[in-house]
Amino acid sequence: MDKVYFEDVSIGDREKAGPYKLSREEIVQFATKFDPEPFHIDEAVASRSIFGGLTASSAHMFSVAYALSHQRKQRLAVLAALGVEEMEFPNPGRPGDELTFNMTILEKRESRSRPDRGIIRVQTVISNQNGEPVVDYKLKLMVAKRPE
Amino acid sequence: MDKVYFEDVSIGDREKAGPYKLSREEIVQFATKFDPEPFHIDEAVASRSIFGGLTASSAHMFSVAYALSHQRKQRLAVLAALGVEEMEFPNPGRPGDELTFNMTILEKRESRSRPDRGIIRVQTVISNQNGEPVVDYKLKLMVAKRPE
Repeated sequence: MDKVYFEDVSIGDREKAGPYKLSREEIVQFATKFDPEPFHIDEAVASRSIFGGLTASSAHMFSVAYALSHQRKQRLAVLAALGVEEMEFPNPGRPGDELTFNMTILEKRESRSRPDRGIIRVQTVISNQNGEPVVDYKLKLMVAKRPE
Repeated sequence: MDKVYFEDVSIGDREKAGPYKLSREEIVQFATKFDPEPFHIDEAVASRSIFGGLTASSAHMFSVAYALSHQRKQRLAVLAALGVEEMEFPNPGRPGDELTFNMTILEKRESRSRPDRGIIRVQTVISNQNGEPVVDYKLKLMVAKRPE
């Protein structure tokens, strides 16, 4: 996999990845460990929820977004994730979904204190097979410059 | 577990939960599936990272925050997670950490369109055994009113 350093990234760059197939088993397994709301793990309860069926935990969908980011051909030389802004969950993830990843570089700036790195802001949108957004967030990453 | 409805919640309410013991095995297992950065799964690479040792994925720490929220004595009647604002990762999660959960109700308002529910904004801070914050975010939740 090609490694992409701070210098290699331009504002407006876009990248896609996917699909990630979301199984019922994975939804239940993740939620059982991290988010055991009945409507994430119990089909009968879920059928009476506001979504009318089993849905994935929002923490699961954020984690799948990370998994999809690792499917890109080019890989950012990330040193650390600094923060997330404005993450929304406009539609739930459901069993059988095929999720795709769209990332756009919004901003880049040099680190003020460390000449070997910079800060990048990216927007990530995960969508389902119907083109509906499931997770939409902006992430601030610390990215390495190319080693000399 | 007591169920807490929209009417039962007051701005300024605080609640604690934990600890959650974070093992090396869990860090590596989560990252292998969702965030296979070498510094989350490979001790040797991690020792040369900016953190000087193995650290947990930020997606993992967000998921652990959800797990801790389920350890509360009282449980919000959540219908859906609507979004996250300003999530920060001030310090990494590390093997052996004992993580605790602190939640504060910031805001509540009735739903404009549906009389059976309301919107609650909560701040969640997950801290390690040294009192250092590991995840800090604001979450917007749709919460049911008490059934009539």
